[in-house]
Amino acid sequence: MQNKETGWSETENNTAQEILNRAYDREILALMEKIRFQASEIVELDDIWRLHDFLSAKRHEIDGKYDNRSSVLIFVLARLLKEGWVHLDELKDLDKDKRAKITSLARM
Amino acid sequence: MQNKETGWSETENNTAQEILNRAYDREILALMEKIRFQASEIVELDDIWRLHDFLSAKRHEIDGKYDNRSSVLIFVLARLLKEGWVHLDELKDLDKDKRAKITSLARM
Repeated sequence: MQNKETGWSETENNTAQEILNRAYDREILALMEKIRFQASEIVELDDIWRLHDFLSAKRHEIDGKYDNRSSVLIFVLARLLKEGWVHLDELKDLDKDKRAKITSLARM
Repeated sequence: MQNKETGWSETENNTAQEILNRAYDREILALMEKIRFQASEIVELDDIWRLHDFLSAKRHEIDGKYDNRSSVLIFVLARLLKEGWVHLDELKDLDKDKRAKITSLARM
């Protein structure tokens, strides 16, 4: 049953959480890979500080990104879809209206 | 000729600068090596943030450490000697009194 206020049922919330979890795992895995590569390419001090800047930005980004509150889930999922961390077929268990909003936002 | 105010002659200042340069090169080389190693060991997200914390601290430390003003040179050299980035035999071209102060401070 959908919560009247949020528009998300418990089942949908659980589905969304699973989608977020998988996206998170993918993004972290790719991030680790990227950092190992960047670090292997370090040849001068500037490369170190560039890696530091990159990590600072990523930390800030990831800290705020996987927000699972119902009020923002559509936007969070759209962003992750756009960035490629969520795959389109993973949205199949959400209702049609939400799916349309997410895919539409992701195209913006 | 020693500058009466600072107690450092131009020649000594140049010598000190060369010592600082070599120490800096050694420290940066070791830092690059350490980061490449730490990055190669990354297996989870916490390892990434640990690397980030380490880089933040190092950046702050190195930014302030290689201060070549005559008024602080004794302390800067003592610290670098203590940390191993300056070698004792590199101080041989500084006058005896300065050498004694630096080695004495480095033992503290």
